[in-house]
Amino acid sequence: MRITELAVATGVPAATVKYYVREGLLPAGTRVSDNRTDYDDEHVRRVRLIRALIDVGRLPVARAREVLAVLDDDVEARHVNRVFAVAQRVLTPGPPAADAPPADALARVDRASADAGWCVLEGHAGRAQAARAVDAFARSGHPVGDDYLARYSAAAAIQAEADLDAVRGRPDRTAMAELMVVGTVLGDELAAGLRRVAQATASMPARATTGGAA
Amino acid sequence: MRITELAVATGVPAATVKYYVREGLLPAGTRVSDNRTDYDDEHVRRVRLIRALIDVGRLPVARAREVLAVLDDDVEARHVNRVFAVAQRVLTPGPPAADAPPADALARVDRASADAGWCVLEGHAGRAQAARAVDAFARSGHPVGDDYLARYSAAAAIQAEADLDAVRGRPDRTAMAELMVVGTVLGDELAAGLRRVAQATASMPARATTGGAA
Repeated sequence: MRITELAVATGVPAATVKYYVREGLLPAGTRVSDNRTDYDDEHVRRVRLIRALIDVGRLPVARAREVLAVLDDDVEARHVNRVFAVAQRVLTPGPPAADAPPADALARVDRASADAGWCVLEGHAGRAQAARAVDAFARSGHPVGDDYLARYSAAAAIQAEADLDAVRGRPDRTAMAELMVVGTVLGDELAAGLRRVAQATASMPARATTGGAA
Repeated sequence: MRITELAVATGVPAATVKYYVREGLLPAGTRVSDNRTDYDDEHVRRVRLIRALIDVGRLPVARAREVLAVLDDDVEARHVNRVFAVAQRVLTPGPPAADAPPADALARVDRASADAGWCVLEGHAGRAQAARAVDAFARSGHPVGDDYLARYSAAAAIQAEADLDAVRGRPDRTAMAELMVVGTVLGDELAAGLRRVAQATASMPARATTGGAA
């Protein structure tokens, strides 16, 4: 297909498609004549993936390029857990690893992880992210209890199993790897949105007054 | 206490404390002489709250100011669900409300919410955020199933109940309102981190090979 057809198929303007090619996010089309370049279904698929990462995932172009490079690496992409690991590293916000969270916050996350039956992964980006949040709760004057961590861990286990089942349900390795990357970013957004809807319902006056210690 | 003591108590440099005052995030101290201004425990508390929002929540200063204004409004802060509503509006990323998500994605989120027993809230920021994620999954070529949405909703319900219980356990209205604001931001970070740890464990080779359709 021509670039104009690719633009229609994806809803992405031709100028933006060209920008993705220049930035190394999208492979160039096949030059068939001086004024015509051909694109195929793989381009449609890739442009959609890029949009998901950049528009909804709000990734900078450089980060999107890094994530896409993992998908394009045949050796890496063959291992589900490696793709997850790289996607998580690239797609987990936070300061550089040198700026480690305090040991006591890490210990609390590790304990909650052990209670949930998870492996404790030294240097894992998600572990550090969770520990930074635990530390920030405490420093804000509102430390979270062990019960709170256990309930959040239970929620995370449900999400992770749903994520893995969705990945396993994809037809091929490329689709599985793509969904891991897309799901890492979009799952955060979906989870945050649903959590807010659930909070809004739970905090309705009629229910708040039936609550406990307040 | 003097500004240097406030700095020690909070771990925030005196110059940054002064910056917070200039930016309207922190009430000025009490001028007791030409070269001395006094700060109290409320300042310590507020500086910690500001840090949580800006450092871990990664809020721009203008957004942090907007959130803090809700806490400072006595009428608003008295109503748990109103504080939640404002915190959610300010602390939910996304395009302006005019740029509404597609109707079919909203309908899917509403159906999942109804199945979870939640009220469907017209114009709710979390509903729009979840719908944008559902739409982006579909546009990336990896639409999520109803089962996936149901499981993510179940996780969100667990989180929201934990959030509300924590809020109800705080000793006074101010602390409750503070925790709602802090928890909206930090809960996202905690949830995202734990979800990644859970994913990493679930995707370990030994477990991945025991999985289903892949």
